[in-house]
Amino acid sequence: MKITRFPLRHLQQALHFAFLLFIAFPGPVSAQVIPELRVEPPFWWTGMKNPSLQLLAYGKDIAATTVSFNYPGVILRDKVSVENPNYLFLNIEIAADAKPGKFVISFMRNRKVAYQYSYELRQRKEGSADRKGFSPADVIYLLMPDRFANGDPSNDNIPGMLETANRSNPSGRHGGDIAGISKNLNYLSDLGITALWINPLLENNNPAYSYHGYAITDFYRIDPRLGTNEDYVNLVNEAQAKGIKVIKDMIFNHCGINHWFIKDLPMSNWIHRFPEFTRSNFRAEALSDPYASEYDKNRLLQGWFDTNMPDLDQRNPYVTNYLIQNSIWWIEYAGLDGIRLDTQPYPYKEMIAEWGRRVYEEYPDFSIVGEAWLNQEGMLAYYQKDAIISDDYNSYLPSVTDFPLYEATKKAFTEKEGWTEGMARLYYVFAQDFLFSDPYMKVTFLDNHDVNRYFNTINRDLSAMKMALTFLLTTRGIPQIYYGTELLMDGAEHKGHGDIRWDFPGGWKGDSTNAFVREGRSKDQNEVFDHLKQLLRWRKSSKAIARGSLRHFIPFDGVYVYFRIAGDETVMVLINNSNDEKTIDTGRFTEVTSGFNNALDIMTGQSFPLHGKLTSKGRTAMVFELKK
Amino acid sequence: MKITRFPLRHLQQALHFAFLLFIAFPGPVSAQVIPELRVEPPFWWTGMKNPSLQLLAYGKDIAATTVSFNYPGVILRDKVSVENPNYLFLNIEIAADAKPGKFVISFMRNRKVAYQYSYELRQRKEGSADRKGFSPADVIYLLMPDRFANGDPSNDNIPGMLETANRSNPSGRHGGDIAGISKNLNYLSDLGITALWINPLLENNNPAYSYHGYAITDFYRIDPRLGTNEDYVNLVNEAQAKGIKVIKDMIFNHCGINHWFIKDLPMSNWIHRFPEFTRSNFRAEALSDPYASEYDKNRLLQGWFDTNMPDLDQRNPYVTNYLIQNSIWWIEYAGLDGIRLDTQPYPYKEMIAEWGRRVYEEYPDFSIVGEAWLNQEGMLAYYQKDAIISDDYNSYLPSVTDFPLYEATKKAFTEKEGWTEGMARLYYVFAQDFLFSDPYMKVTFLDNHDVNRYFNTINRDLSAMKMALTFLLTTRGIPQIYYGTELLMDGAEHKGHGDIRWDFPGGWKGDSTNAFVREGRSKDQNEVFDHLKQLLRWRKSSKAIARGSLRHFIPFDGVYVYFRIAGDETVMVLINNSNDEKTIDTGRFTEVTSGFNNALDIMTGQSFPLHGKLTSKGRTAMVFELKK
Repeated sequence: MKITRFPLRHLQQALHFAFLLFIAFPGPVSAQVIPELRVEPPFWWTGMKNPSLQLLAYGKDIAATTVSFNYPGVILRDKVSVENPNYLFLNIEIAADAKPGKFVISFMRNRKVAYQYSYELRQRKEGSADRKGFSPADVIYLLMPDRFANGDPSNDNIPGMLETANRSNPSGRHGGDIAGISKNLNYLSDLGITALWINPLLENNNPAYSYHGYAITDFYRIDPRLGTNEDYVNLVNEAQAKGIKVIKDMIFNHCGINHWFIKDLPMSNWIHRFPEFTRSNFRAEALSDPYASEYDKNRLLQGWFDTNMPDLDQRNPYVTNYLIQNSIWWIEYAGLDGIRLDTQPYPYKEMIAEWGRRVYEEYPDFSIVGEAWLNQEGMLAYYQKDAIISDDYNSYLPSVTDFPLYEATKKAFTEKEGWTEGMARLYYVFAQDFLFSDPYMKVTFLDNHDVNRYFNTINRDLSAMKMALTFLLTTRGIPQIYYGTELLMDGAEHKGHGDIRWDFPGGWKGDSTNAFVREGRSKDQNEVFDHLKQLLRWRKSSKAIARGSLRHFIPFDGVYVYFRIAGDETVMVLINNSNDEKTIDTGRFTEVTSGFNNALDIMTGQSFPLHGKLTSKGRTAMVFELKK
Repeated sequence: MKITRFPLRHLQQALHFAFLLFIAFPGPVSAQVIPELRVEPPFWWTGMKNPSLQLLAYGKDIAATTVSFNYPGVILRDKVSVENPNYLFLNIEIAADAKPGKFVISFMRNRKVAYQYSYELRQRKEGSADRKGFSPADVIYLLMPDRFANGDPSNDNIPGMLETANRSNPSGRHGGDIAGISKNLNYLSDLGITALWINPLLENNNPAYSYHGYAITDFYRIDPRLGTNEDYVNLVNEAQAKGIKVIKDMIFNHCGINHWFIKDLPMSNWIHRFPEFTRSNFRAEALSDPYASEYDKNRLLQGWFDTNMPDLDQRNPYVTNYLIQNSIWWIEYAGLDGIRLDTQPYPYKEMIAEWGRRVYEEYPDFSIVGEAWLNQEGMLAYYQKDAIISDDYNSYLPSVTDFPLYEATKKAFTEKEGWTEGMARLYYVFAQDFLFSDPYMKVTFLDNHDVNRYFNTINRDLSAMKMALTFLLTTRGIPQIYYGTELLMDGAEHKGHGDIRWDFPGGWKGDSTNAFVREGRSKDQNEVFDHLKQLLRWRKSSKAIARGSLRHFIPFDGVYVYFRIAGDETVMVLINNSNDEKTIDTGRFTEVTSGFNNALDIMTGQSFPLHGKLTSKGRTAMVFELKK
C-alpha cells in the first residue's frame, strides 16, 4: 500500500479536512436507485475443497424475494437478509460430484420474477490445486501498470470512468496498461526475472489520484483503462509460458469510497464509521505490543487509511467471506501463482488467518507475501506463518516483506564502516533470523513503489548499486526488484509518489528514448542492466541459492563473506565495501571451504585457488562457485 | 565489564602487541615454587541443599599424597589428580545431618604429613535459603569502590600489592574503599536507593589499571586496598540494616593474568590458549545467530577479553565447579542479596545455566542480573530465564540488562520528535517486550561504569535529566542509577574510562567540596538530587510501581502518557518532551481512568480533575496518583 509513515504534521493537516470529509462520508444505510441485479462471485467452480459458497445478491428490495434454482448437487442451504433490503446473501452447498454447467437463480416477488441470474459452475483447470507458488528460487519484478507501458492507447479514457489520462500530471493516470506489459514480456524474460508482482489492476473509479489502484471500486473487474478481465487472464498465461509467475496485489483493509456497496452499505458494520473522519494511526506495532491500549489498537484497525478509502470491518463475517471468496475467485479464474497482500496488519488479524487457512485448503503450495511494514525483526516475525512468538496466532502467510533488511540496505553500502555501520547492518539483521519461523521465505528488496528509489537512497553510487544487487540476489530470501532499478531510475518519496513511479522510457509511443532496447539505454544503465541480467541468469541455475542454507562470517575491515550451501554445491560471496583492495586470508573459512580447491568467479569466469589469499578490489561484490 | 565496543582500528592496534604478549602468556603447564597449601573454598556450610563439595587443594606435588580426614557425616568420595601434580581435587559429600565443626584434612606422603588443613563446616545463618533478592520495587545504585570514598587512607598502599595509589592518574588507584562506602551509607539511605551494586572488590594484584576490579587474582579475597573480607561482611550487614540490599559483581569469563592458578595452570584446558594473543571478537550476537560460523562463535567464547585477562574455559568441569562454588560461598559468607554477572554471553552458556540452576537450588528467591550487552531486543531476550525463543536453552538468570532501552534513552529526551524519534524510541522498545519471558525483571539504566555519563550524553540538559530520571523510575523494570548521576557528573567514555569514573567529591579527606552534604552541592546538583530523592522516596511506597502492569499510549505530538496499574492503585505518567505547553484531552485514556476523578501530582501535591483537559509545561514529566 502507498502507506506513508506520516510525519505528525501531516496527520494534523489531515484532521483539518475532517468537516469536508464528513459530507462525503456515507450516511446511514439507505436505498438508492439500483440499476440492475448483481451477483458476486459472478460464477464459481466445481471440484473445490470447500463445498460452501456465499453469494451476495444486490437488487432493489431483493431481501423480500423468494429464491429458487434447480441443479443436481447444488442446494440453497439458506438465505440471509440483512439491514439493507437491497441485499440478500445466499448460502449454497456444492456437492463433490456436482457437474460443471449453468442454472438459473430466480428471485420471486408476489409470484412474479423480480430478478433472474444465470449462474455458472465452471470446470477447474487440470492441476489447479497443485500449482506451485514462488520460492527463494524466484526473483520478483514489481511494476506499476499505469507507469510501465501503454500498449493500447485506445483504452486511456473510458466513458463512465471519472479520471482521464494526463501524462503531465505526476499523480494522474498515464495510460500504461495490461497490453503494455504483454508487449514487453520478452524484455522481462530476457532480463531473467521469474515472477511479476503487478500493483493493483482492479477498477479504481475515483475522480483523481486513481492510477495507483489501491482504492478499489469493483472487486471483480479489471479497470477498463488497464484492460479487460480476459486481457489479464491472457497476460498471466503468456507470462507463465515464458517461465514468469504472476502475483496479484490484493487489498482487504479498505476499498475505494466510490465502490458501489459503499454507496449503499449492506449493513452499518460493513465498514468502520466515525462521527468525523478518523485516520488510522499507522502504528502496526501496537498489535503485538503487550502494553498497548485498546484505544491505539482500535485506531490502527478501524481508522481509515485515507479519506477516499473506507475501512472494511472484517469482524463482519459477510465482509470476510466476500473478500476470501474474491481472492479465491481470482486465483482460480486467472490462474495466479501468488498474492501480495497489502497492509497485512491493518485488517483484523483473525480474518487474515481465516483467509490464509482457506486459500491453503484449496491450493496447498500457493504463495502469499504479506506487506507487514515493521522495521523490527521481532515484530515482523509475528506476522509470518507458524510464528514462534505468537500468542497462538497463526497468520498462515508463508512470506512477509523484509523491511528490517530494507532499512539496513539503505545505509550499508554507502556509509563508513563501523562496529554497527556498513556491512554490520546486514549482519545484525541476519543474526536475528532465529526469531522467524522461516527466514528464507521473507521477500527481500532494496525499494518498492512506496519508498525512495534505491539509486536515490545511495546518492547515485553505481558501485553501491551493483554491490547491493549482488547481495540481494545471493543472500537468503526471495528477492524483489522494482521496475526501473535496471535503468538506475531516481526519485524521492518526499517529492510525491509520482517521483518514485516514473514512466518506463519507451513504454509510450513517441517516447524520446526506448530503454527496452540496449541502444536506448545509457552506458551506466547498460552496465547495471548487464550486471543484473548476468546475475539473474546464473541465479536460475544455482541450487545453492534456490535452497541452500546461509553461513556467514562477521564483517571485518569492511569485508563481508558468506556462503550458500546446498548438498555439494557451495557458493561464496565476498563483498568488499571498503574503498581499498583487500587481501583475505581464506583460512578463516575452512569449516566451509575444506573439500574445495578452487573458486570460480561467476561473473568473469576466472578461477582462483581457494586456499591462501583472495584479493578483492574495493567497492565490489564477488560471487564464486566452489569447485573440487 | 569494561567492555569496549572496539572500533576496528583498536582491534588492529591490539594485534601489534601479539609478540609482546606471547612472552607474558603462560607457557606449558609447569611446576613453580609453592609457598604453602591452599584449599578452596576455604570453608563451607552444613545444611546446603547440594551435599557435594569439590575442594581444590594446591601444594607442591600434592597429587602424590594420600588424603584422609575423619568427621561424622562427611566422606571423601574420591580424589582426582590432574595434569599438574601440584593440584588435587577432593570430592566430598556432606550428609544432611552433619553438624557444624572443624576437622583436619591430612595429605600424607611416605607416611609423613606433607600438608594439613583444618576444614570448617559452619552453621548457615537462619533463613539463609529464604533470602529475597531485588525486584522492581528496588532501585539499584551502582558505585565503583575505588572512586567513591576513601574511608581508610591507611590501606591505600599495601606491601605485596603491585599498584600503589595515585589519585592524579585517571587510570590509577585512587584509594576509595569499603570503609568509604560504610561511612556514607546514610547518604545513600537518605537519597532513597534500596540496593547497592558495587563494582568488583576481589583482589586485583596487577601492576597497573587494577582499580576497576575485573582482573581478579584471588577469588576468595577482598583486595586489601579496599578492605578485608570481614569489612565486606560488615558493610553488607550495615547496609541491610538500613534497608539497602547488596549485589556483588561477579566475573566468570576471565580472571587476572596474575592469578596464582594462572601462573601454575592446573590443566592445559583451564583457560583458552592460542599460539599468539587472540582477542575476543566481542560479538555476543553470534551465539544466537542461526547462520554464525563456528569460527566466530569460538572467537567470541575463547578469545581473551584483554591482554591481562586469561579466558577461563568453562567447558572444563573443574573450572565450572570452582566458579559456582565460589559464588555460593560469597552469597552464604557475606549474606548477599543479589549478583550482577559480568559479560553474560562470554562464558560458555551451559556453565551459566548450570550456575543459575545451582544458585537457585540453594536460594530460590535470590536475584541475578546478567550483563547481556545486546542492543537488539530479540537477542537480549535469549539470555533471560525461561526465554521464549531459546533452542531449549535456559540461562536461569531472571534479570538481564536492558541495553535496548538504554540506547533509546540516549536520544529520546534531546532530539526532535518524529515518527521514530524522541518519545517514539521508548515506545518501540516497550512494544517489543512480548519477546521477553519477564520484561518487568529487566534492569534499566541511563548509564553505567562502561559508557558515557548520561549528563554528557544529553549535552548537560537539566530538564532532559529530570525527565529521564522520572521516566526510569516509573516505567517497567528495575532501575539502576550510576553514582554521581545525582551530582550531574559529566564524562565521556572516549576520553578514557577514568573520565566516566570521577571521584565522588568529598569522599577524600581534603577534598575542596563535599557533595555528600547539601551545602557542598551546586544549585543544579541540589535540584537534581532533590528531584531524585523525592521520586525515590515516593517510589518506595508505590504498589503500582513495585508490581503494577504497564499500559501506554502511542506518543503523539511530543507527549508520552503511560500508566502503572496494580489492583486499585493506578499511577499516570505524562512526559511532555516538546518545548511547548500542551493541553491533553484525557478522553483518550478512559479505558484506564474511568472510575477515577482526580489526579494527584506526587511532586507538587496539587490535585487536578482527571476528566477533560490536563495541561503540562514543555520539557517536564509529571507523575500522578489517580484518586476516586
